Amino acid sequence: MADNLSLERLVQALRRLPGVGVKSAQRMAFHLLQHDREGARVLAGALQDAAGSVHHCAMCHTFTEAEICSTCEDPARDRSQLCVVETPADQAAMERTGAYKGLYFVLMGKLSPLDGVGPRDIGLDKLLDRIMDTDAPVLREVILATNFTAEGETTAHVITQALRDRDIKVTRLARGVPVGSELEYVDLGTIAHALVDRR
Amino acid sequence: MADNLSLERLVQALRRLPGVGVKSAQRMAFHLLQHDREGARVLAGALQDAAGSVHHCAMCHTFTEAEICSTCEDPARDRSQLCVVETPADQAAMERTGAYKGLYFVLMGKLSPLDGVGPRDIGLDKLLDRIMDTDAPVLREVILATNFTAEGETTAHVITQALRDRDIKVTRLARGVPVGSELEYVDLGTIAHALVDRR
Repeated sequence: MADNLSLERLVQALRRLPGVGVKSAQRMAFHLLQHDREGARVLAGALQDAAGSVHHCAMCHTFTEAEICSTCEDPARDRSQLCVVETPADQAAMERTGAYKGLYFVLMGKLSPLDGVGPRDIGLDKLLDRIMDTDAPVLREVILATNFTAEGETTAHVITQALRDRDIKVTRLARGVPVGSELEYVDLGTIAHALVDRR
Repeated sequence: MADNLSLERLVQALRRLPGVGVKSAQRMAFHLLQHDREGARVLAGALQDAAGSVHHCAMCHTFTEAEICSTCEDPARDRSQLCVVETPADQAAMERTGAYKGLYFVLMGKLSPLDGVGPRDIGLDKLLDRIMDTDAPVLREVILATNFTAEGETTAHVITQALRDRDIKVTRLARGVPVGSELEYVDLGTIAHALVDRR
């Protein structure tokens, strides 16, 4: 399609989105051009704005447009607790529970040596700097809320090891049977963990 | 997230893409901001360009940046045949077969009264104008290649009715058993059609 370079370029650009293959990218491009050109312009503007103005919070590493994000700046949060999560989406899930009032550190990923993701890529040194910060002796507990996948567990393990000799409590979210589930349909590993961690 | 309006706006804008819900939009936004800011800028540029320069071919209604698309301008194409398809993707599928050398008309949709898509929305009047064009008496056959769905069949039926009294051959792609398939796994409607259309 020599006369259609910009359509071709749009399809290629859409493929850079995660989970979007050739067919989806074509469908998206056709949809925008046929039914929603205004949407294409809005999306272009939003991409430009976000790529230019969003960066990492100096304290918790999450996405923010300010120097320090609103959660870290909130004087009502309990500064003795620091919850370590993998992504802003995980942080949002924690927030929705309404059960946590402390601060966060967002790794923006998880250790995955096979994919070339090492401690530095997920800001582990920044996390340790923050925990060791002697100007903030108020921190008493680090809650590891990385995912219960192989990479998430490894990440939690590495952080635990790094904090082993420090006078700080390191906890992990409880593993167990999800609320509302029937034992019959819960996988065996989960039941075994729930049995060990019974109270 | 009062300090994160442009991230929020980006997620909302990504949701305008077909098949993208809140979770996918968040994942896309996080991916672009964390791993591929260059991709975000490339996509923004491609969207702007395409929204500004891509329009419909004056002859076949497909997307093009020129006045007339390259297929319609190609002097090697057989001008006695006109193949009617629903989308540029369907046209591309026809082209890949290498079995068709005529021209196309791309409806850019299908009749769907329940969704408020009428004849005018899919350019049916433009198609009929083109077929009736007395300056182009060379056209002898209209091949209906709309999809074999309820809407595609309706669209084909409406076009057939509109051309009933004209001195022009109207054909439909053959329905039948797909190449390479085993009868045992083919649905009954397809087998019944293949039986009726046997040759």
